[in-house]
Amino acid sequence: MASNIVLSNTDFKVVGTRPVRHDGTDKVTGRAKYGADFDAAGLLFAKVLRSPHAHARIKSINTGKAEAASGVRAVITGADVPTDSAAARKVMAKDKVLYKGHPVAAVAATSAHDAEQALALIEVEYEILKAATEVREAMADDAELLHEDQTTDELGEKSDTHSNIATHFRYEQGDLDQGFAAADIIVEKEYSTATVHQGYIEPQNGAAFWNMNGELTIWVSTQGAFTTRDALAGVLDLPVSKVKVIPMEIGGGFGGMIPIYLEPLTALLSRKAGAPVKSAMTRAEVFEATGPTSGSYMHIKMGATNDGKIVAAEAMLAFDAGAFPGSPVTAGAQCMFACYDIENARVDGYDVVANKPPVAAYRAPGAPIAAFACETVVDELAEKLGIDPIEFRLRNASREGTRRVDGPVFPVIGNVEQLEASRESEQYQRPLEGPNRGRGVASGFWFNIGLQSSASISVQADGTISLVEGSTDIGGTRASIAMQAAEVLGIPAEDVDPAVGDTDSVGYTFLTGGSRTTFATGWAAYECAQEIKQKMIDRAASIWDVEATDVDLVDGVFQHASDQELSMTFKELAGQLNRTGGPISAQVSVDPRGAGGAFATHIVDVEVDPDTGKVTILDYTAIQDVGKAIHPSYVEGQIQGGVVQGIGWALNEEYRFNADGRMENSSFLDYRMPTSLDLPMIGTVIVEVANPGHPYGVRGVGEVPIVPPMAAIANAIYHAVGVRMNQLPMSPDAILESLWAKDGEPAGLAQAAD
Amino acid sequence: MASNIVLSNTDFKVVGTRPVRHDGTDKVTGRAKYGADFDAAGLLFAKVLRSPHAHARIKSINTGKAEAASGVRAVITGADVPTDSAAARKVMAKDKVLYKGHPVAAVAATSAHDAEQALALIEVEYEILKAATEVREAMADDAELLHEDQTTDELGEKSDTHSNIATHFRYEQGDLDQGFAAADIIVEKEYSTATVHQGYIEPQNGAAFWNMNGELTIWVSTQGAFTTRDALAGVLDLPVSKVKVIPMEIGGGFGGMIPIYLEPLTALLSRKAGAPVKSAMTRAEVFEATGPTSGSYMHIKMGATNDGKIVAAEAMLAFDAGAFPGSPVTAGAQCMFACYDIENARVDGYDVVANKPPVAAYRAPGAPIAAFACETVVDELAEKLGIDPIEFRLRNASREGTRRVDGPVFPVIGNVEQLEASRESEQYQRPLEGPNRGRGVASGFWFNIGLQSSASISVQADGTISLVEGSTDIGGTRASIAMQAAEVLGIPAEDVDPAVGDTDSVGYTFLTGGSRTTFATGWAAYECAQEIKQKMIDRAASIWDVEATDVDLVDGVFQHASDQELSMTFKELAGQLNRTGGPISAQVSVDPRGAGGAFATHIVDVEVDPDTGKVTILDYTAIQDVGKAIHPSYVEGQIQGGVVQGIGWALNEEYRFNADGRMENSSFLDYRMPTSLDLPMIGTVIVEVANPGHPYGVRGVGEVPIVPPMAAIANAIYHAVGVRMNQLPMSPDAILESLWAKDGEPAGLAQAAD
Repeated sequence: MASNIVLSNTDFKVVGTRPVRHDGTDKVTGRAKYGADFDAAGLLFAKVLRSPHAHARIKSINTGKAEAASGVRAVITGADVPTDSAAARKVMAKDKVLYKGHPVAAVAATSAHDAEQALALIEVEYEILKAATEVREAMADDAELLHEDQTTDELGEKSDTHSNIATHFRYEQGDLDQGFAAADIIVEKEYSTATVHQGYIEPQNGAAFWNMNGELTIWVSTQGAFTTRDALAGVLDLPVSKVKVIPMEIGGGFGGMIPIYLEPLTALLSRKAGAPVKSAMTRAEVFEATGPTSGSYMHIKMGATNDGKIVAAEAMLAFDAGAFPGSPVTAGAQCMFACYDIENARVDGYDVVANKPPVAAYRAPGAPIAAFACETVVDELAEKLGIDPIEFRLRNASREGTRRVDGPVFPVIGNVEQLEASRESEQYQRPLEGPNRGRGVASGFWFNIGLQSSASISVQADGTISLVEGSTDIGGTRASIAMQAAEVLGIPAEDVDPAVGDTDSVGYTFLTGGSRTTFATGWAAYECAQEIKQKMIDRAASIWDVEATDVDLVDGVFQHASDQELSMTFKELAGQLNRTGGPISAQVSVDPRGAGGAFATHIVDVEVDPDTGKVTILDYTAIQDVGKAIHPSYVEGQIQGGVVQGIGWALNEEYRFNADGRMENSSFLDYRMPTSLDLPMIGTVIVEVANPGHPYGVRGVGEVPIVPPMAAIANAIYHAVGVRMNQLPMSPDAILESLWAKDGEPAGLAQAAD
Repeated sequence: MASNIVLSNTDFKVVGTRPVRHDGTDKVTGRAKYGADFDAAGLLFAKVLRSPHAHARIKSINTGKAEAASGVRAVITGADVPTDSAAARKVMAKDKVLYKGHPVAAVAATSAHDAEQALALIEVEYEILKAATEVREAMADDAELLHEDQTTDELGEKSDTHSNIATHFRYEQGDLDQGFAAADIIVEKEYSTATVHQGYIEPQNGAAFWNMNGELTIWVSTQGAFTTRDALAGVLDLPVSKVKVIPMEIGGGFGGMIPIYLEPLTALLSRKAGAPVKSAMTRAEVFEATGPTSGSYMHIKMGATNDGKIVAAEAMLAFDAGAFPGSPVTAGAQCMFACYDIENARVDGYDVVANKPPVAAYRAPGAPIAAFACETVVDELAEKLGIDPIEFRLRNASREGTRRVDGPVFPVIGNVEQLEASRESEQYQRPLEGPNRGRGVASGFWFNIGLQSSASISVQADGTISLVEGSTDIGGTRASIAMQAAEVLGIPAEDVDPAVGDTDSVGYTFLTGGSRTTFATGWAAYECAQEIKQKMIDRAASIWDVEATDVDLVDGVFQHASDQELSMTFKELAGQLNRTGGPISAQVSVDPRGAGGAFATHIVDVEVDPDTGKVTILDYTAIQDVGKAIHPSYVEGQIQGGVVQGIGWALNEEYRFNADGRMENSSFLDYRMPTSLDLPMIGTVIVEVANPGHPYGVRGVGEVPIVPPMAAIANAIYHAVGVRMNQLPMSPDAILESLWAKDGEPAGLAQAAD
């Protein structure tokens, strides 16, 4: 299923192999400690009272009865949150609730049951306001404002208009009118996509102990211990050094485990109660009160010449941000046309608040939504021009030197190479036959990021090394980072013992996300291993009484340049360190530039049941340039995981709101995510065009696989049954409606409905 | 009470001040986690079956009934310990038990109660052998051998003699016969001292989880996480990297928390049961089955000229090691005459096994025992020559260039300076009056040690630093190490957040003991801070676009050498790091030489009740050269603590064995340690003769304060009531017997006894 096309490589010993992950045993035996596993003497349990209304003014809160209830040790409301920023109001409502699920109060009690009972005793008086959960509804002139003082940031200037539109920005290059004038064919479309959730398996949690000396310790499953610390310090008005975050293992994140939710509440409850406090969400709370990604409305227009050259592209993207500004529309706009070299282009982006939980990052935030619009239009252009869709993409492919609509100029990228690999792939070469079957293709881009990472290494006497990294490990990064250190030192990956440090025990490290960890923390480990290597070379030279410049480490053996007698394995030297000058250890922090952008193309074969509208995924291949696959199994796993989330997003997932703005399907029974029974094995093709901005050529891997699936599946549905879907999800009812719009409602069904 | 005499100094900002200790709040509020606080899901509890006999052959062990008992999950015996070294047999007896309390089997069960019940079901058949608990008894030709194959290591050669004497060694210099021939006066004495225990407040513990992947994790209160790891790896035949030791807080140690006891047993039980296992000792187990220090027999002869010059010194020291070789007689012999410049000297040392728990280190191991003999003889010489005892010591004081009997030549030491400070001390200048009162003086030496230490530092955005150190903190070393880093960086001690790392998260660090931590780990922190300083200077230079060599850090402010405009505080630069090139962190390991030796003199005033023999400590001053007191409060505390342990050792503490070799007083009710009600405030005088072998001049502090007390009190008792005590403890009954031997038994008492 998986194949590997290497276009550039170096002869590595560890990088590119598939060792067993270091944390595997702990995880498969259930010994790994997740947030909810935290325990402490005298631990209290917290529950959160949440708004039942999507939009309302809080007229009064009376916590008196709750405070007097059995087992209750502390009650807090928004008044207890010591700051008044948007970040603070996200954590707990002060005067207004902005979505159903917005925290209003929280209780810590000696049992979770007592805490829950006490919630019912808190009396809140609300003045209910009109709610808008859909982006165009929220943008309407007569919409009820979520933030009365919010005026639109209009093309970089603060306007006077009070609106739910927080920001309107524009990226453009070339001359759009001239571009469209040169086009032989133009496709123009409208799209809408529903709010979807990351659907990680572990609900949010967060235990806190606020010590009498003012020091706050947090135990939490999080994508970023340091960013959680910094966010908490901001909301709680503490210096960062007074907050220590101990990252527990994490059961998925995909961007959703970045914001703080329960941590500041358990912290404040802990301070009030003088005891440690733990809390964890129910699944309904996860859906209703943590950040999904945006729902959207998009308008797009693209033009091409008859010889298959895209000459103009224009888009308007309106993303809802949930209750506070901050949708991923910016990234969506940056990525939207990045697969193509388009001379004339413009993207208008709108960040719009609505009465839904504030959005969080979700894997390549914004890019999948924008790609759904762009890549289905590209497919339609290719179809109308009679050009193979991969060939059409190749003719327009961005490459080194192409300027993105938002400004950056591409360095070495693997877009052309991954498109060529897609064209040559087994699935694409194999004909697809049978009624109601269709093949779809779509590409995607994600820029990836670098930012700050730290790693420390100490050499053990048995020739292994301990590696402490600041990045939490979601998808196998203990292994992928350890392997980069092992490669430098010429030792097996199994001889590295990686651990995730807390915020007090390793240098600052930005969160695990954005597709940066194997790139940036891997780089920190690489640099740290280089420092260890040099110190060991110095030691070998000192033991041999020779110049260090004459000693090198080759394949795990320290060797003198000319004297063949002077040779020592890494293990041999490690065993001598303590008696020849002391142990060897090092710590390094980095902030690398040069995160190479990732390009992918997905090929999907579907069969559409014309009677039910159900789409079956027959076959799926994801082709991606990863720069260098440090651990190919985890690269494949990342790609497969992204595809599966994309399939769910494409076919079934959506927040269904009732007229009052309340989510109607906040459980995994009703919010339908794909399971293994719904899916074929996802094929992967790893293309390696080394990123010159990384020692091993690594590009981020984890984000871009979720970008193409919705468009690829929409294109496949079109080629199967002839309808171009312009909304997500493409659920059976939506497809049936489109089929009926095209072919007319079947007579039998119309009769049965009578 | 405390005073501070500074003979050399530098103008430090943080070093020498008294900030609140960083771990204070956690400890005084009971939040600090000690070994027994460990908990885990599915935790089992272990109890150890111990030998009831002091010496016996194990004929059979039947664990069948115990294995079948309620709640029992695993039972182990010596056969389960995978190695067969002395270290392994210390951990659990294989074919012989060598002392009452020697582990014979262990049980893990779902409750401590079930485990204890199951112990009673283990059937052990013993063949009882003759036991020897006193050193001369064990040395006797007809003594039953503990180790049948043990032959004496006689002056460096293996002899053929099978004996309980493991080693006989000799140090000598000069010509002893010539020395004694030149003496005008000779004093010759015999001494014996009883076995005493460190008496730390926290009993030994050790939780273990042996994972299915072969990785063993240990949670334990220990003086050395790394040395515990290495010892476990040896006994369990594992590579060190398969063992991770997580050091919990520690409730005292004084050397006794160095060996492994429960850890290997819980580890083996965990492997068998497939679950985490915890165990903690009772106080009786601590007394009977952990290492106290040696009991001893000593013979000593010293000669001096009439003008007060010691010209010859000879000693024979026989220390019992408990059941396995390894008494501190070597260190005792090395320290014994080190306060004096004696041209002709010889010390013979005997390491003797006996049927007692194997000895462990106890604060300046061996030195207090040897000093008891030497310093009481020195007092007698001074008295007989009519020279003030401090003046006598000054005339003979070792100083830079003096050669120790075991070889080393002293570098810069503060012996003369601390003696001069003693002579000038308030207590010594004040006359002591009243019947049965006497003043005693004694000196002491401890060499201190260096060895391997590591520290890592990361700079936080708020201008504080996180410091991870490999040394467990027993006596305030988080503070004393943090302060050395703070001094380098020009920040307050409070802006350092120190943490103790586990064996996977910081570089190799030797144990906390030997008086090395503030010296060596402090040095690691100093070097690491220097690296941080350089990296920050480089960053400041990069921000200012100037040469790094033109930038310096002065009093916490980065400044350009010539451009006064270019100036930035440590906090200001710290806040900019993440956006000017990334975070800054470093890790450094060191193995420093040059641990400066410590000298102390103690002055004690006592009153002896002639009717009961009870000694009351009226006043006590300890004078000590500490090189540089990083945190004077903890230096004073270390000195006071050492003195108090010495007072207990002097007056009351001893293992009382019955004829069968069973300890009769294994509880704190019967083993009498001094409490605050028994003691005056202990005065301290800190003398600072900088150690040129350390950046701040530090010498180890913690060991030497326990060296002089027994001799000082013996000398005071002599000056009070005229009897020279030659045994420890100098308990009321021992003193009464000496008084009666001198003065005759009081008539009234003799009558009453009729």
